Amino acid sequence: MKLQNDLILRAAKGEAIERYPVWLMRQAGRILPEYRDVRASLSGFKELVETPERAAEVTIQPVDILGVDAAIIFSDILVVPEAMGLEYQMLEKSGPWFEKTIRSEEGLKYAETNFDIEDRLGYVLEAIRITNKELNGRVPLIGFAGAPWTIFCYMVEGRGSKTFSESRKLLYTNPTLAHELLSRITDVTIQYLKAQVKAGAHMLQVFDSWAGILGTEQYAEFGLKYLDKIVSAVNEVPITLFSKGAITSVNAVAKLNCNTVGLDWNMDLVKIREEIGETRTLQGNLDPCALYSSHKEVENLTNNMLNSFKSRRHIVNLGHGVYPDIDPEKVKTFIQTVKNYEISHK
Amino acid sequence: MKLQNDLILRAAKGEAIERYPVWLMRQAGRILPEYRDVRASLSGFKELVETPERAAEVTIQPVDILGVDAAIIFSDILVVPEAMGLEYQMLEKSGPWFEKTIRSEEGLKYAETNFDIEDRLGYVLEAIRITNKELNGRVPLIGFAGAPWTIFCYMVEGRGSKTFSESRKLLYTNPTLAHELLSRITDVTIQYLKAQVKAGAHMLQVFDSWAGILGTEQYAEFGLKYLDKIVSAVNEVPITLFSKGAITSVNAVAKLNCNTVGLDWNMDLVKIREEIGETRTLQGNLDPCALYSSHKEVENLTNNMLNSFKSRRHIVNLGHGVYPDIDPEKVKTFIQTVKNYEISHK
Repeated sequence: MKLQNDLILRAAKGEAIERYPVWLMRQAGRILPEYRDVRASLSGFKELVETPERAAEVTIQPVDILGVDAAIIFSDILVVPEAMGLEYQMLEKSGPWFEKTIRSEEGLKYAETNFDIEDRLGYVLEAIRITNKELNGRVPLIGFAGAPWTIFCYMVEGRGSKTFSESRKLLYTNPTLAHELLSRITDVTIQYLKAQVKAGAHMLQVFDSWAGILGTEQYAEFGLKYLDKIVSAVNEVPITLFSKGAITSVNAVAKLNCNTVGLDWNMDLVKIREEIGETRTLQGNLDPCALYSSHKEVENLTNNMLNSFKSRRHIVNLGHGVYPDIDPEKVKTFIQTVKNYEISHK
Repeated sequence: MKLQNDLILRAAKGEAIERYPVWLMRQAGRILPEYRDVRASLSGFKELVETPERAAEVTIQPVDILGVDAAIIFSDILVVPEAMGLEYQMLEKSGPWFEKTIRSEEGLKYAETNFDIEDRLGYVLEAIRITNKELNGRVPLIGFAGAPWTIFCYMVEGRGSKTFSESRKLLYTNPTLAHELLSRITDVTIQYLKAQVKAGAHMLQVFDSWAGILGTEQYAEFGLKYLDKIVSAVNEVPITLFSKGAITSVNAVAKLNCNTVGLDWNMDLVKIREEIGETRTLQGNLDPCALYSSHKEVENLTNNMLNSFKSRRHIVNLGHGVYPDIDPEKVKTFIQTVKNYEISHK
């Protein structure tokens, strides 16, 4: 099906664009009352993730309501560890929780790789198919997965953490086990991303949410190495790598065979552009808290960011997922400001 | 009273040292069974903080048991907001919690500045006096406070947070209020640090635990500005600034009038030394998780770090507080490795 708006794909590939494309991480979610209505009609977050028709519905909401240039499939990065054998719960107050964790060789029995993706993650693929049918080519659909290091953190820690010290401990006490688990996650993630493309994803993003808790050398060994395997294996569609917090590794991320590098709001976009040149598209990176400002100030802050772009190779986004208490009208101002911005002089 | 071991003071001032001094953030705390015994005999964390004799006792434990080159007064950065009018509780599972928060001008009534430090924080000063008496000059005693930005985060947020979005929101929606609150915290912190010196602290450290959640420009405006006021006003003894996570601002921290810059384990010590030259002492920065390794590996990792020092201007520490489940014997190996290290060639 021909896309009516393929701006984000052209931006990712460094092709000509008439304006900057814009979308938001977590755009399909709690900021929208329409999402909260769907969510309230179901038993919980997981039912929504696992019910393709409803997942497709909330995936499309921000396209209709906010006017973003891409949809991103409503799902969770934790579907992968669950498919591998570690069931998770999403607790209302404290977030994800796994009953079992992997901290020794014995735990590897919960890290299966020999299974059929359609069999265990078919609900995501079905949601992608339904979404595309309903989008009918209006905008591209982004598929995604967690990066191996981030998924590893959840499989070892069993929950979120400020320090992820159990996960990092394993890098020192049993690096062989760490690499084995990371390799298994990588294998499954590659299959999963390819299946998403086959189901209809036009673009992919890999989220390394906990990249920032490792030092540069450890991130090279336990993070980048596996991102490299992914981008080497998955090249059907443009791919974005977002290593949140990895300020000292962002140039190394840009050297991997990806199209786009995601930047968080603490990363210096101007400096990174200078360092990497025109080799990659950069995605980001307005501080999500900027959307708490007045409409006028949201416009100013967005224009300031756009003015700092020294290139056309940009996809506009926040530097982190949009916070749930942000007024959707402010999001619209952000999006409209990007759409109004003239890039003829770049 | 003459100090028998003033190594850390000489290192901070860039004077000659015969070996690198070493201590650990959170050395007086849960890693030691002797600490846990004291803690178990009291009603809770706050009783320990507020009982000078017992606070002094646990302050001295790591000097006796681990052989560190400095003691740091056992206390908490949250005693300052409490003295200003916001009482906190330390919850066993979730950490600090404030019933009231400051999110509007009205809340400023909980940010008093006109009070006598001895009156409201005398228990810390008394703990310092008792500790010094009992230490009897064996090692210097470090006093400390939270940085204004970090204290601001707790006063606005009321608890720990992954994003501190309420605190950061205020920087956009009401910067005038933010600056007023930061100024008040700064005023009290200066008085408090000076009172600690008067009570006997030989050295001071300012902890900016949440520095890393601000981008470079916002940290300059809402963080560094107030650290600058502190180091300009407090110059009785050597002072260390530790802006955790502020990777893109560490050179700016080093430009402030401090003696020592603390580095977290993600900061590249070699690169920072190259950039700042010999102007400042650097403190850090072994990954706290390195102490989960075998004794042999702890020794190797510590020696690798020491070998990377291109200068004598170093105070050895971890890059973060020691984690509570670390074996104290591993800490001893870390400390002994530093003590055995020959620096004659530097």
